[in-house]
Amino acid sequence: MSLIVQKFGGTSVGDPDRIRNVARRVVATRQAGHEVVVVVSAMSGETNELVALARELGGTVPSPREYDVLVSTGEQKTIALLVMAIHQLDQEARSFTGAQIGMRTDGDHTRARILSIDADRIRSSLSAGELPVIAGFQGTDDDGNITTLGRGGTDTSAVAVACALDADVCEIYTDVDGVFTTDPNMVPAAHKLNRISYEEMLEMASLGAKVLQIRSVKFAMAYGIPIHVRSSFHEGEGTWVVREEDVMERLVVSGVTYNRSEAKICVLGVKDNPGVAAALFGPLSRAGIVVDMIIQNLSQDGTTDMTFTVPSDECDRALRLMEEHAASVGAERVEGDPGIAKVSVVGLGMKDHAGVAARMFEVLATEGINIQLITTSEIKISVAIEEKYTELAVRALHAAFVESGATEPVAEV
Amino acid sequence: MSLIVQKFGGTSVGDPDRIRNVARRVVATRQAGHEVVVVVSAMSGETNELVALARELGGTVPSPREYDVLVSTGEQKTIALLVMAIHQLDQEARSFTGAQIGMRTDGDHTRARILSIDADRIRSSLSAGELPVIAGFQGTDDDGNITTLGRGGTDTSAVAVACALDADVCEIYTDVDGVFTTDPNMVPAAHKLNRISYEEMLEMASLGAKVLQIRSVKFAMAYGIPIHVRSSFHEGEGTWVVREEDVMERLVVSGVTYNRSEAKICVLGVKDNPGVAAALFGPLSRAGIVVDMIIQNLSQDGTTDMTFTVPSDECDRALRLMEEHAASVGAERVEGDPGIAKVSVVGLGMKDHAGVAARMFEVLATEGINIQLITTSEIKISVAIEEKYTELAVRALHAAFVESGATEPVAEV
Repeated sequence: MSLIVQKFGGTSVGDPDRIRNVARRVVATRQAGHEVVVVVSAMSGETNELVALARELGGTVPSPREYDVLVSTGEQKTIALLVMAIHQLDQEARSFTGAQIGMRTDGDHTRARILSIDADRIRSSLSAGELPVIAGFQGTDDDGNITTLGRGGTDTSAVAVACALDADVCEIYTDVDGVFTTDPNMVPAAHKLNRISYEEMLEMASLGAKVLQIRSVKFAMAYGIPIHVRSSFHEGEGTWVVREEDVMERLVVSGVTYNRSEAKICVLGVKDNPGVAAALFGPLSRAGIVVDMIIQNLSQDGTTDMTFTVPSDECDRALRLMEEHAASVGAERVEGDPGIAKVSVVGLGMKDHAGVAARMFEVLATEGINIQLITTSEIKISVAIEEKYTELAVRALHAAFVESGATEPVAEV
Repeated sequence: MSLIVQKFGGTSVGDPDRIRNVARRVVATRQAGHEVVVVVSAMSGETNELVALARELGGTVPSPREYDVLVSTGEQKTIALLVMAIHQLDQEARSFTGAQIGMRTDGDHTRARILSIDADRIRSSLSAGELPVIAGFQGTDDDGNITTLGRGGTDTSAVAVACALDADVCEIYTDVDGVFTTDPNMVPAAHKLNRISYEEMLEMASLGAKVLQIRSVKFAMAYGIPIHVRSSFHEGEGTWVVREEDVMERLVVSGVTYNRSEAKICVLGVKDNPGVAAALFGPLSRAGIVVDMIIQNLSQDGTTDMTFTVPSDECDRALRLMEEHAASVGAERVEGDPGIAKVSVVGLGMKDHAGVAARMFEVLATEGINIQLITTSEIKISVAIEEKYTELAVRALHAAFVESGATEPVAEV
């Protein structure tokens, strides 16, 4: 008997028929002899409807506290309806809001972080023979205010529940078959990965392979809980996200990811003094603008160029901020380009293959794609390119690295 | 400066425009120098939608616990949206779910009773300069399960909050101008009452003058909190529901009420032994069927007829139950008539006017209306008649008692 946490997103519970399907699936798992805990999102469309109401009544920036009170009703609806559907299959079940399982978070409304969970409440429900159904995405802070974890937060709720219960696996049901080597809509040769390490998944998720919320992967990694990303439409195996040592073969490149909504900002002719970076990035951070890649050119004549990327919808705000602060760092001028894509190759095997970077640049050069920025990590190399070359770059890199099937056997590490 | 609790029902918050209207109204009261606490229902239509979903997924009898989890989301939506609208008027405000103000109830899901409220939580919100907006209709039991008070429960929530805060008045905003002497749709001469006692209101409410939930009147009476029933569409005074000694003139009959959905059940030839009533009404009570009027004829030859009324939609169930139990009390047969109306006259002045009953029967006899059952209380006389005579009876009684304006000056009591 395993203890399995199953998470179903908004599409999987999008209407009464789908809720009944989920009920059948969780009851089947339970009848197969497992203990099952379910975590669900709001019905698809529900959250958008609530957000539209918030905009209508609360203006452009509705109170974050009240926003959370409002949108958390979406998951509360789903848990009650799913429990009712489970009851119709003659299985005991009980719903829990975030507050009711002591899903304690910080007070950062609309993007709160989980601090703790009262696992005893869930365990006693299991002991009573019930199938606990938990509202994802929501919790309460120390003062009892309702908080939400931000879009996609139900993944994080599910993994956090799995960690608190020391579950055998957290199954994330989704509308895709698992984690792919790249976007199959862009590259027909893309294939599903059977296993991938937490580290690779983190790089894939943060780079835009929207299958799993990044925080949920961090939780699972910290507690060593395997995640199984699988389809809610069929029974087939999906992708297991596991510890590095449980990945059988280390692909040099497991996946090619992209994000086509980046913008590039260049602050030119900055004085090359200590404190310049803080003077520029401090204001961006305080404005809540997330800076991704940062490059500083070599200094020439005591001045340098500072280049970085931000989400393309933050391009105008970032440009204005830099123009305000340019004088204070003696910059000559500020330039912005909202049409940037970031393309990355990710793979555990890369740690021992310095040549991957060279090969990547060669592939892109062959296609005539100019590289504007480069960043690297232990298991990832990313380049910023002109947005219109995204497909070309992704296909060429997928062909060169993934379809070639370059692997590094575990034994050699 | 007064402390005013204002309750707005589903129609008053039925869409974003109406929510903005409510926001303007409560902020205006606040700016007039009063402390204001607001209690709201779900947006009109919302609860029906949720109930339909519950039926679809939970069958004919969805889990009452989960039903409460589901429908309580309706009020939670409203409080967040109303607070957002109040914020747009530059007034501080904060929403509270039932759980968040410690609205403790018993565990009787879908019709829970309020046990206590944490008034300190509301007071500290007021002290912080906020306008507290509270979800009506909902609470939690001792185990933290979400409960609801049943349809119309927001009235009860509002009055309970007013009692807990020792408010100066609980204003119930509604789509009528106040409490009328009878249904104005039926009797054009019906007029609004300026003041009415709790006792009269209880009789009016329980007899079908659907303006105020009966439990809310009991609460207000117990704590001596005045209720002001008034229109949400204009500023005019409505009807004050107050202590008997605060009613200026005691009308012999304040109002004529009716309920046209009653059914009459007769159990004929019952043995006139002790325990017969228990043998018949025990099963009805256990089946949750509310029995209203009960008449037992004088015994003849050791047998008697037992006649009573039930809601007309319970007629079939009550009939079946009586047929099952008829033999055990030696009854000859059971008859049912689902087409019964109850018409009542209510008035504080009646206490000292035994002649009112005689006059009432005379008025009905003049119209050729046969009286099937009669019950009386200190301030009410009710008769059961054939349903098709309802209008005729109500109009005749209103003309005879209300339009004649018979009063009893307080001095004479």
